[in-house]
Amino acid sequence: MTQQRIRSGRQARQAERVGRPVAIGRPYIHRNIPTYDILSEENLLRIEAAADRILAETGIEFRDDPAALDHWRRAGAEVEGVRVRFPPGLLREVLRSAPAEFTQHSRNPANSVRIGGRNVVFSPAYGSPFVMDLDRGRRFGTLEDFRAFIKLAQASPNFHHSGGTICEPTDIPVNKRHLDMVMAHIELSDRPFMGSVTAEERSEDSIEMARILFGAEFTDRNCVILGNVNVNSPLVWDGTMTRSLRAYARANQAAVVVPFILGGAMGPVTNAGAIAQSLAETMAGCALTQLERPGAPVIFGNFLSSMSLRSGSPTFGTPEPAIGSMVIGQLARRLGLPLRCSGNFTTSKLPDAQAMTEGTMSMLAAIHCGANFILHAAGFLDGLLSMSYEKFMLDDDLCGALHSYLDGVQIDDNQLAVDAFAEVGPGNHFFGCSHTMANYQTAFWDSGLADNEPFEKWEAAGGLDAATRANRAWKKRLAEYEAPPLDAGIRDGLRDYIARAKEGVPDAWY
Amino acid sequence: MTQQRIRSGRQARQAERVGRPVAIGRPYIHRNIPTYDILSEENLLRIEAAADRILAETGIEFRDDPAALDHWRRAGAEVEGVRVRFPPGLLREVLRSAPAEFTQHSRNPANSVRIGGRNVVFSPAYGSPFVMDLDRGRRFGTLEDFRAFIKLAQASPNFHHSGGTICEPTDIPVNKRHLDMVMAHIELSDRPFMGSVTAEERSEDSIEMARILFGAEFTDRNCVILGNVNVNSPLVWDGTMTRSLRAYARANQAAVVVPFILGGAMGPVTNAGAIAQSLAETMAGCALTQLERPGAPVIFGNFLSSMSLRSGSPTFGTPEPAIGSMVIGQLARRLGLPLRCSGNFTTSKLPDAQAMTEGTMSMLAAIHCGANFILHAAGFLDGLLSMSYEKFMLDDDLCGALHSYLDGVQIDDNQLAVDAFAEVGPGNHFFGCSHTMANYQTAFWDSGLADNEPFEKWEAAGGLDAATRANRAWKKRLAEYEAPPLDAGIRDGLRDYIARAKEGVPDAWY
Repeated sequence: MTQQRIRSGRQARQAERVGRPVAIGRPYIHRNIPTYDILSEENLLRIEAAADRILAETGIEFRDDPAALDHWRRAGAEVEGVRVRFPPGLLREVLRSAPAEFTQHSRNPANSVRIGGRNVVFSPAYGSPFVMDLDRGRRFGTLEDFRAFIKLAQASPNFHHSGGTICEPTDIPVNKRHLDMVMAHIELSDRPFMGSVTAEERSEDSIEMARILFGAEFTDRNCVILGNVNVNSPLVWDGTMTRSLRAYARANQAAVVVPFILGGAMGPVTNAGAIAQSLAETMAGCALTQLERPGAPVIFGNFLSSMSLRSGSPTFGTPEPAIGSMVIGQLARRLGLPLRCSGNFTTSKLPDAQAMTEGTMSMLAAIHCGANFILHAAGFLDGLLSMSYEKFMLDDDLCGALHSYLDGVQIDDNQLAVDAFAEVGPGNHFFGCSHTMANYQTAFWDSGLADNEPFEKWEAAGGLDAATRANRAWKKRLAEYEAPPLDAGIRDGLRDYIARAKEGVPDAWY
Repeated sequence: MTQQRIRSGRQARQAERVGRPVAIGRPYIHRNIPTYDILSEENLLRIEAAADRILAETGIEFRDDPAALDHWRRAGAEVEGVRVRFPPGLLREVLRSAPAEFTQHSRNPANSVRIGGRNVVFSPAYGSPFVMDLDRGRRFGTLEDFRAFIKLAQASPNFHHSGGTICEPTDIPVNKRHLDMVMAHIELSDRPFMGSVTAEERSEDSIEMARILFGAEFTDRNCVILGNVNVNSPLVWDGTMTRSLRAYARANQAAVVVPFILGGAMGPVTNAGAIAQSLAETMAGCALTQLERPGAPVIFGNFLSSMSLRSGSPTFGTPEPAIGSMVIGQLARRLGLPLRCSGNFTTSKLPDAQAMTEGTMSMLAAIHCGANFILHAAGFLDGLLSMSYEKFMLDDDLCGALHSYLDGVQIDDNQLAVDAFAEVGPGNHFFGCSHTMANYQTAFWDSGLADNEPFEKWEAAGGLDAATRANRAWKKRLAEYEAPPLDAGIRDGLRDYIARAKEGVPDAWY
């Protein structure tokens, strides 16, 4: 697949400014800054050797999925009960068929994203049972909340992806909510999205709905939906996950393979060990997709976390996982796989200073490590237990800043501005000079949420903090939201599918 | 000078934990992660060529300092009135005598810092006329505030330097406050500090007080005080600054040479142009120290800032200056000079989400760009107009995290933990395993301010936000502060000096 032509960052922002308020930004970011390579070749080899030893000596259990065990037997792994041990080099050989880069198509072709290579895609947070806002506090998420977050993302120029289970719609039965979630993404957004993975048949439903939207043949040849599957760390793949992973791969759709390693609980307390474990677990999951269907797209994921030594609580947005992400990035590039890393993580229970200290450190780690698909880019609060409306808007703004960050520095005669110094001269200001007039509209990223006014002006306007401004901003955005048009035939087809899938099926609540 | 032996990060933190509450951390950080090199050799050469053209064609004005002009004439620059134009290569040649790395000594030798090379020193913010806290709001700073911030820094394990004009003590006359500020640093802290630069005689007073503390001969041979001098961008050096710069250099003390470039006002709106300007202005200032005294220590500084295109207000902690810092880091290393970059910048008027989003992006830029001396590491709020007690504590905590961040990843058999996987096995937890027990005390940085508790526990404890916790934390730290012992003879000598310096001098208030 060839790299599709996109507008440069400056051009895109210029275009946005002409037509404010902004409708849609760039479909994704093509990074213009290098990755941050933290470890030497020698040390990377030591981590890879440790992962190989874990895989060969301890191995990984694949539970409740005989077909997965059959795959491993045929591939040459040593299978003993549900334990699978991998001869060194086996997984890397299997992974050679996985694409380094692929397109996830959107129903609006202008919003299709390239995942892999130098491309970066921002997607909202995923999986919280609770939602929060400053008015109503913390409560269980509903389908109405779920739909609201899709609208907030769709109406922002700073995201590229609609996400998946943005929050759990707990007012809908567990065995039916995946249908409503996929429908909401399709109806309310025209960006790419993720399906369900919580049971094989729910994965199949999600993919089938994508087939209704994109056509069965197109779907078999192109990626149109992602499924985020988790390792049950340490070193266990549950059948629910591998069956879903295989369902996505079988349909030529991309699984995002993610160990969640809380150091000291689901992995060692030492960073290097957790990284080696993450590599081992992710390689095994990614390789399984290739055994199910060689050439299927797959994303190399990770989710490193640390622990408070005083309380035993998980911590997010701390330095060790940030540094760990940099290493994971190097390892993924050595495997030639698209990378999912970090996100905007925090344990704070409010959209406050702690939330954004931890979140910014975590997001910048994802940026520097070379992540291609950044899930949890917005809304994450409360150690992933709550999706916050205000945090979503703060993170959205940070995602906007990161577009400019990833554009890096342009070096050309206009940017270097040598002639402007001769024009302005020592001691004079650049306000009205011709270089400023020619460049000011595209020079700097302009936050929609930060208050840059002088103190007196800020105070006279009410002296609001960022969280309160974010509270006003999400309400305004929801009020102004307009759904992108959707073909009526497709909508009816999807509704019919959902009605049939739900009909006569008793509600299950866990 | 040889690199002094320091404890490794893990050892240091282990030592801290044994003796909680922590008294003193590491004297400075020796970075174990690479710098982030964002631009290619080719593009760096283009920026250097642009700086050379600015210096040769437009030149820089040196106002109200004939001695500086004499220096330039003797060095071979073209002097026309106060305008100085520099033949390409001249400044680089002059800068060859400046040390790449030096020690700033502290009255407590254990706290002396190495500036340059792979070393990183954190110092509080500098220069705000106002102070803020959540109880009393925004008000002019006083000597009491100034002393309070020194105490807060001294009592933290996360700083390495006492700073300089942490806030302006506006209750003391302008022409006398430098004496009280230097005295406060010496009495209340036993870390290195900065002197005044607001007039040549105040610089001389600051240095003279350092001589009383360290002895005249030691001071002539070693760096014991820093002076932070600003360019009057664009392309003007005022005599007040160059006279102070020369006073520090003459005494073999280190000037920190800092252009403040607000893009679109004091420099072009384009990042590459602002970087070229910064390089030109800083090289000229640093070179002047070498003409005054070859071999004097000097620090290559910069302060890039952007502008809100909607309001014309300065913005801080935005992506363009962060990216610009990375380039400046590469340029400083190519010159072989110690680097000061960024800090914890923001325009927020509260210690809120905006403050820490901007601050964290800005601080991480300083970390990645390889800055050796990070001024403004804590307390900066309100576009540098206010020093905030709560922000100081939040930033202090981030500085703690950055110690671990800069330690990077250790790769050895213990850290890789391969045997622990065999011990624990798939599906089991690592809580009590021998590897966890052997490593948990030193595994993760532990925030003193973040709340990592479950929501219910956090709520039951009052549901406080980070700013409120920071408010309690600074009061507790101030209440528990103990001054480090100071030799009574030195104290009396300093008091005598101050009394004589103030005697019979009328107060000046501007």
